[in-house]
Amino acid sequence: MTDPLSADLWPDVRPDAARRLMAAAVDAFAERGFHATTTRDIATAAGMSPAALYVHFPSKAAVLFAISRTGHERALAMVTAAAVGDDPAAGMRRLVEEFAAWHATKHRVARIVQYELQALPPADYAVVADLRRRTERVVQVLISDGVRTGQFHVDDVRTTARAILSLCIDIARWYTTGTRPGPGELGKRYADLVLGMLGAR
Amino acid sequence: MTDPLSADLWPDVRPDAARRLMAAAVDAFAERGFHATTTRDIATAAGMSPAALYVHFPSKAAVLFAISRTGHERALAMVTAAAVGDDPAAGMRRLVEEFAAWHATKHRVARIVQYELQALPPADYAVVADLRRRTERVVQVLISDGVRTGQFHVDDVRTTARAILSLCIDIARWYTTGTRPGPGELGKRYADLVLGMLGAR
Repeated sequence: MTDPLSADLWPDVRPDAARRLMAAAVDAFAERGFHATTTRDIATAAGMSPAALYVHFPSKAAVLFAISRTGHERALAMVTAAAVGDDPAAGMRRLVEEFAAWHATKHRVARIVQYELQALPPADYAVVADLRRRTERVVQVLISDGVRTGQFHVDDVRTTARAILSLCIDIARWYTTGTRPGPGELGKRYADLVLGMLGAR
Repeated sequence: MTDPLSADLWPDVRPDAARRLMAAAVDAFAERGFHATTTRDIATAAGMSPAALYVHFPSKAAVLFAISRTGHERALAMVTAAAVGDDPAAGMRRLVEEFAAWHATKHRVARIVQYELQALPPADYAVVADLRRRTERVVQVLISDGVRTGQFHVDDVRTTARAILSLCIDIARWYTTGTRPGPGELGKRYADLVLGMLGAR
């Protein structure tokens, strides 16, 4: 049985049982937090025994790492693809539209990806921190390109890149199903705000 | 014994013991999350017995509510004071400088204030939700004033107000002691970015 939500979030995760466990963990972590969730909670919510969970993940932290790593890989792939092209302003518009809409649509998993980092074991945290640095770097390079073409007017590329990602990420905190405007329209309005930040309106 | 950090955060909370419990709860919630923290954890960290905690707070949720309510009251007072005056652009600059710097300096307590709302009992949540609406309203009115004076150029006042607060609040997620630029300088750079968002640079 493939859960459509988790198949959409994690198309490359196999088998379905691992994906079901990750989806159940997102719900449990969102409800009670990482520390108050047991492997039994996760397994039960996924319709499995705790022993069946250990076939796929050695620990609760390993489930969190799988959620966090795949979420950050997805973010990096998204901003990298959006930034391609020779018009930095158009690239930034695509990037913000997609990154903002993703945090609205997937706010539940995004909260786990963004807010439970400190529960990761150090080696896992290092993997995620590297993905975060590469994501910020894509945005920094895009801003620098736009400064070079004269489209953007920016004093502090690093702080501005961080602010743009931060603005989109925080959507996951306050967005709930049914919030207006919806994810696509919110992404467009945020892209306008960001182009204003960059002096490109 | 007055803890200087908690006296700064909660100057109006009396007696000191209540304030010490709130500070200990911030640490415990930050470390383990609300659900995995016991009243004993909080009392022990404050150097008290669980029975002594109940003299001041009827439950763990009541400590969370005290932290959340005072944090939101402080935020409302801060934005209201900053917005006063007849120059909306200057008011917005003050507001963002202070609100951003506060979330950098007090990132630890701000994370509890902003991320543990769903653990509040419904009646307590309603109090906090009202404070949040009033805070957003101050920013909406300030933007509308700036549109009227011709300083700001904004299509969607509600989404823009939310984005400005959101940008500042998310600082608490990624800021840690020692991050550069420091809180004051970060506030100034964020104010520049926000004035750009508003078409006022």
